Amino acid sequence: MRILGIDPGIATIGFGLVESERAQVHMVTYGAITTPAGLPLSRRLFQIDRDMEELIGKLRPDVISIEELFFNTNITTGIAVAHGRGVILCAAERCGIPLHEYTPSQVKQAVVGYGKAEKRQVMQMVKMILKLKAVPRPDDAADALALAICHARSATSLLRQNPEAKQTI
Amino acid sequence: MRILGIDPGIATIGFGLVESERAQVHMVTYGAITTPAGLPLSRRLFQIDRDMEELIGKLRPDVISIEELFFNTNITTGIAVAHGRGVILCAAERCGIPLHEYTPSQVKQAVVGYGKAEKRQVMQMVKMILKLKAVPRPDDAADALALAICHARSATSLLRQNPEAKQTI
Repeated sequence: MRILGIDPGIATIGFGLVESERAQVHMVTYGAITTPAGLPLSRRLFQIDRDMEELIGKLRPDVISIEELFFNTNITTGIAVAHGRGVILCAAERCGIPLHEYTPSQVKQAVVGYGKAEKRQVMQMVKMILKLKAVPRPDDAADALALAICHARSATSLLRQNPEAKQTI
Repeated sequence: MRILGIDPGIATIGFGLVESERAQVHMVTYGAITTPAGLPLSRRLFQIDRDMEELIGKLRPDVISIEELFFNTNITTGIAVAHGRGVILCAAERCGIPLHEYTPSQVKQAVVGYGKAEKRQVMQMVKMILKLKAVPRPDDAADALALAICHARSATSLLRQNPEAKQTI
């Protein structure tokens, strides 16, 4: 199963593709879509839309794993990210790719084994699990790989619970 | 100038088209795009995307006037609306339609003449200005017409200030 993790945003959208088979997860590629701060919001959104379609066409994921949004701090940033996330969800749907959403604590739990783990710990575990030489850069790409790993592990544990569920995962 | 007002949302997106010439504004059509609550968010966003493209193709506006987002109360609703608004801005950009954004108080100021006017007063003024028999329903459509009137009046006042600005409005 090819799982594309997406860390949503408006300036930087991290992506990370892993190949998951049974309990094994391998990194295929990772990177980031970026949009210039000087462009009007609508232009940045349109660029994200086109880049997401191109990325999905090139990487051909079986499923997309994307972060849920939570805002306790900066609402203005949150609103901008939600605009970008809307366009990303829409592009995935247009391309017919199934979507799964995970909260930051679900990702931490799946990757580190502790829902309140620090960001640094998540980064180190991504590097270890995928047998990389260094922590992927930018952070958004590492976060995206963590989301992909999270879905791989959630799918595996769901399979363990119910072997007949395979076709729906 | 054909101005399409858009009241953004996820469940109901109001739209209202007016034709504006000099100081005169005439209603052409209004209505709402709706999405079922039971659908996953990504499906609703994709439906909004397609419906917006179809609407723009059919109504052929010269410009879109859309509400800016402000949240003091319900953040969860605000995040959902921002997802929808992102898709709407993206669809407008894809169709090559210039966008103008107005805050609720700018709309009230332009339509009622008072930035803190009540919703009921805005509705009544929309009815009067457009010479309608009743206040348009749903409220989202009336709000969208108010946004279109707001742009018509802002554009006119900009023209008064600078007659050479006509081509950029």
